[in-house]
This record gives sequence, C-alpha cells and structure tokens, in this order.
Amino acid sequence: MTATTDGLHPDASELRLARVLAALGDEGRLATVRALARLGESDCTRLQADAGLEMSRSTFSHHQKVLREAGILHARVQGSQRILTLRRAELQARFPGLLDAVLDSPA
Amino acid sequence: MTATTDGLHPDASELRLARVLAALGDEGRLATVRALARLGESDCTRLQADAGLEMSRSTFSHHQKVLREAGILHARVQGSQRILTLRRAELQARFPGLLDAVLDSPA
Repeated sequence: MTATTDGLHPDASELRLARVLAALGDEGRLATVRALARLGESDCTRLQADAGLEMSRSTFSHHQKVLREAGILHARVQGSQRILTLRRAELQARFPGLLDAVLDSPA
Repeated sequence: MTATTDGLHPDASELRLARVLAALGDEGRLATVRALARLGESDCTRLQADAGLEMSRSTFSHHQKVLREAGILHARVQGSQRILTLRRAELQARFPGLLDAVLDSPA
C-alpha cells in the first residue's frame, strides 16, 4: 500500500509546508510527534499514554487526523489496533531538516 | 530597547515552539517571513508588496501581530513607518535550524 492510493494519506509530493507547520503548532500534537519519534511506531493507546496526553479518545483521534492529513504520520490497521508511524523519510525528503529541528527544539 | 521590556515582544526565553510553528503555519505568514528574510528589514507597505499578499491592511496587520507575538518578527516605529525585522538570532539560539529549514523548504 502506498500513501498515494489509500485516500487517507497525502502523497509526499502533495505535502504543504504551511499545513505541516500548522499541524505541528499545537502542544498536544507536538507531544504526540515527539512520543512517536521515540517509540518508532505505536498503537494509539500506548502513544497517548507515552505522550502524557490527558484528553478524551475523540480529541486524541482528532489530533491524529490533523497530523495524518498534513502528511506527518501514517496510520495502518492491524487486527483491532491502529498502528501509527512518523513519515520521517518523506518529510525529510521534502522539507530537509525541518522535523529534526522540531524534535531537537525545546518546547 | 530590549525585547523584554517593551511589552510587545516576548523575551527569547519565553518563545514557545508550538506557538512559533502555529504562527508559521499559514501561507500568508510564511510568505511574509520569506519576504522579510530576503529584505533584511522592511516597512509594512514594501513588505506586503514584496510578499505578494493581496489582502487588506488590517488582515496584514493581524498576520504581523501573530508573528510578533510568537517572537518571530520585531517591529519598531521610525517616523511614520513601522519597520519589521526577523528575530533570526534569537530563533536560531532557541530553536536551532528551525527557521533555516522553513526558509529552505518549498511551499
């Protein structure tokens, strides 16, 4: 499955800088991205716990959707779980150094 | 005049990553920041023209305010003009590589 054909993930060529920055411009979504960078990949429940986010499942789902639609994370279904990963290589190819600068920066 | 004491600009130590990213996460504000990076410093009228932003003065003023309050640009009054500059050194000190990655990225 490629990112282009599933209708859920923008193709790498479609990533827009303003949208990526806006998606990252939220404390909860930043914590989600930082946790996912540490974990490599994660199911939603573990990710929310690891990110230390005390919010409803639906709010966390909304944040995931914003990150997914901006092209920052990839979600796949595995059994009864949704497994999330960062689209690090595609972000790095299109916006070199950006994600690393974000991850290396203090809050 | 330091950034701390004028009440209009956050001190470098107060810059928040999520707020900086959110401020940059808009096509018009990104164009403003790119134009200001090219110009070095600029009055508002020239900056808006150089950024190619066809919007009302009040909308452009709002974008400037968002960027100023996030700590991305500095405004000073000079005669009848407001002169804007990027706070490059302070952003680089606090979020190394971030602004350069943004400026070097395609839209």
